[in-house]
Amino acid sequence: MRHLIDIADLSVSEALQLLDTAEAMAATQRRRVKKLPTLRGKTVVNLFFEDSTRTRLSFEAAAKRLSADVINFSAKGSSLSKGESLKDTALTLGAMGADGIVVRHSASGAAYRLAHAGWLDVPVLNAGDGTHQHPTQALLDAMTLRRYYRGDGEPAEPGKTLKDAHVVIVGDVLHSRVARSNVDLLTMLGAHVTFVAPPTLLPVGIDEWDCDVVFDFDEALKCEPDAVMMLRVQRERMSAAGGGFFPSPEEYHRSYALDHRRFTMLKPEAVIMHPGPMNRGLEICAEAADSPRSVIVEQVANGVNVRMAALYLLLAGEGTTND
Amino acid sequence: MRHLIDIADLSVSEALQLLDTAEAMAATQRRRVKKLPTLRGKTVVNLFFEDSTRTRLSFEAAAKRLSADVINFSAKGSSLSKGESLKDTALTLGAMGADGIVVRHSASGAAYRLAHAGWLDVPVLNAGDGTHQHPTQALLDAMTLRRYYRGDGEPAEPGKTLKDAHVVIVGDVLHSRVARSNVDLLTMLGAHVTFVAPPTLLPVGIDEWDCDVVFDFDEALKCEPDAVMMLRVQRERMSAAGGGFFPSPEEYHRSYALDHRRFTMLKPEAVIMHPGPMNRGLEICAEAADSPRSVIVEQVANGVNVRMAALYLLLAGEGTTND
Amino acid sequence: MRHLIDIADLSVSEALQLLDTAEAMAATQRRRVKKLPTLRGKTVVNLFFEDSTRTRLSFEAAAKRLSADVINFSAKGSSLSKGESLKDTALTLGAMGADGIVVRHSASGAAYRLAHAGWLDVPVLNAGDGTHQHPTQALLDAMTLRRYYRGDGEPAEPGKTLKDAHVVIVGDVLHSRVARSNVDLLTMLGAHVTFVAPPTLLPVGIDEWDCDVVFDFDEALKCEPDAVMMLRVQRERMSAAGGGFFPSPEEYHRSYALDHRRFTMLKPEAVIMHPGPMNRGLEICAEAADSPRSVIVEQVANGVNVRMAALYLLLAGEGTTND
Repeated sequence: MRHLIDIADLSVSEALQLLDTAEAMAATQRRRVKKLPTLRGKTVVNLFFEDSTRTRLSFEAAAKRLSADVINFSAKGSSLSKGESLKDTALTLGAMGADGIVVRHSASGAAYRLAHAGWLDVPVLNAGDGTHQHPTQALLDAMTLRRYYRGDGEPAEPGKTLKDAHVVIVGDVLHSRVARSNVDLLTMLGAHVTFVAPPTLLPVGIDEWDCDVVFDFDEALKCEPDAVMMLRVQRERMSAAGGGFFPSPEEYHRSYALDHRRFTMLKPEAVIMHPGPMNRGLEICAEAADSPRSVIVEQVANGVNVRMAALYLLLAGEGTTND
Repeated sequence: MRHLIDIADLSVSEALQLLDTAEAMAATQRRRVKKLPTLRGKTVVNLFFEDSTRTRLSFEAAAKRLSADVINFSAKGSSLSKGESLKDTALTLGAMGADGIVVRHSASGAAYRLAHAGWLDVPVLNAGDGTHQHPTQALLDAMTLRRYYRGDGEPAEPGKTLKDAHVVIVGDVLHSRVARSNVDLLTMLGAHVTFVAPPTLLPVGIDEWDCDVVFDFDEALKCEPDAVMMLRVQRERMSAAGGGFFPSPEEYHRSYALDHRRFTMLKPEAVIMHPGPMNRGLEICAEAADSPRSVIVEQVANGVNVRMAALYLLLAGEGTTND
Repeated sequence: MRHLIDIADLSVSEALQLLDTAEAMAATQRRRVKKLPTLRGKTVVNLFFEDSTRTRLSFEAAAKRLSADVINFSAKGSSLSKGESLKDTALTLGAMGADGIVVRHSASGAAYRLAHAGWLDVPVLNAGDGTHQHPTQALLDAMTLRRYYRGDGEPAEPGKTLKDAHVVIVGDVLHSRVARSNVDLLTMLGAHVTFVAPPTLLPVGIDEWDCDVVFDFDEALKCEPDAVMMLRVQRERMSAAGGGFFPSPEEYHRSYALDHRRFTMLKPEAVIMHPGPMNRGLEICAEAADSPRSVIVEQVANGVNVRMAALYLLLAGEGTTND
């Protein structure tokens, strides 16, 4: 494993290594070791062409806990807006001595290009590229699920998979890199995924994905899933959509929200997930979001653990210099 | 002391502990010890919903001198603008492992809510909330005054109060959290406060505050105050105000500026204060701002000392983890 | 050497000391020592009144490799926009305990004023002031040239000058602090500089500069220069200019670009330089930018080395406190 771009690049054993390492990172936190010396002297660049405070903060916290130096590079007001190419930005960051690059970009495939075009010889971590992939999000979801599926929320034993788990993912699958990364990783770990979405919010070619699709949330809930993952509604898409491409907030809420009624349909051991930030009252009701079955806050904590694991596995042991 | 939200929450002994600790921090700087290991491994999040470069830089410098990691989180372009609630932001930062949160918000009470709503179990430091409180500003003002009131500017001995000091505070009291925090702390330490302001810039209920109010700056100066604190004029309020609510710059300058004539009315040992940034030529003349009686630059230096003290007292010894 | 404001302030031996120290910094990188403890406990403030991501990142990386704490202060949304003077900003940063200030400003002379007005007693490093100077850019160019002029790209031996080197600098000399700093440093080190530019993009008084000026790029290339340095075209100036002050992109490209034909006119050992970010296809073709003769990426790496050297020589050994 040289980069972390796409869940599909991972073997099962690599995915499990990432998840097990993330549990090991969590264990050091429980022992109140806040900072590990592993990446001392390394420089991690957060190269964000899109705003994403949550993801940037999580990577920043992860890198600093590993004692790396972090340089934040927001594309706003940068050379990029002066027309520099992705290639020249990559060459520049490499020449400045970056030991690893975390990249977020609005274009699907940008992270792949950064990693594989031959511009850089340091690891690249995809922090979300267009509607394509968001692998650390999928890993933190899987880490959280491993703890609760046939478990009590305690750290999962090494090598645990999600065999036969049933996960329902609800919402705008079309625009969601979270959905795409999750279906790849969950099925790789043995889980079964059902998407619930209106037909207009499903991507072309979804029938080739390794999952079920239903249009009726209630029907999916009758199968007693082990987890329900609510996707974030992008309000800006709602208002921008003319002619019924995206449902109105009221329609969406009626058909696709985890509201009180649907919340009561869950089996007792099912968990509720959301990648955040939530639109409380739109795709999820406060009762569900704040209930003991909600593992949404734990997802955030696991996000730091998973990113520590990825940075550790990709950057430690490297002694790259750029001079 | 679990949080630092409001001067009114402090006992006299807690206030003096903060001030004495700030003097101890200043003493380490004089001994050229630039960095203390006290908060090594702790993460301080600067959560700024409002721009305030000076306050953010001061907290950042204070945290770094204590060897903490600092993560800056400006609400611009963040999840907040995507509609996430303060609650979810709090839960997120807690889950990411923040050991302390410095918060600046335009809404009065936001810091209190963050500290006491049960969302977080880490200390919260109020860096200014609406027109309500700015406790570290009051502490740095008191630290500076303790050195000069019946003193020569040298570090104050432990336990020193401001008994019988007379402080005149001039300007827009209505919109000033600095004024509000200062009257609380100064009177707690035994000082007497006189506000000078036009009637339109005084808050409703000012007669219940523990202070005098006069409309005539010259009259206040005749009492030979020990300190004159000029509040910053918010130029944007001036232009926004129709119909004489806020005086014009010319009127304001004539009636409320510390100009040459009023500067010469001060007694020799009186000091001149300003929270910064100054509008030179509007509320204060350059002669006063740059005179030996001005302690404005010392206020800035003491700001770092006071914030080091607050971070130290609230965060050291804590071993909170969030896993 | 107390500050680094203007190449003209440097003696030849100071310039060589900077370049030799930069080579020593590069040598530590080659030995995979990523971090030196030299500036531990020092705080470097990046005070940027103008956006310049590349220069800011380079100084930030340099300071962190020397173990300094870095505080980034972008003037956007800061007190500055509230009307605070440069003087008060300087006093504030000094009082907060900055041990060195890196400043970028749109006004020529701002860095000099910050260093010499008596507001601060810490070193000031000019990271570009208006159209005046950008000394670390000139130093990184000279460091790169020293390696290739009568050399093979390996580190230059201490004390090496550029005696009799011929450097052609092409483009908008009028607005370029890079051009101005370079002519000063290159001639100081014994090189000969030829500017190539349209008459409208040459500053008044250029005939007093220690260089040649020609209007015809091809003519300059016939002299077989040792290096060709392409200046960045500011596209915003092109569009803003009415009436032919600035050539159109097509005219500019035809007359002043390093295109394929001109690229083939270079002698084999000549190097191609550009301060970045490049407008590929406008002032330089991709063939030239990516050719083995291009040292553009090495310039970026040397930028970090030169800034490490400058920070080290100016800040190490200082024990300034501001209390």
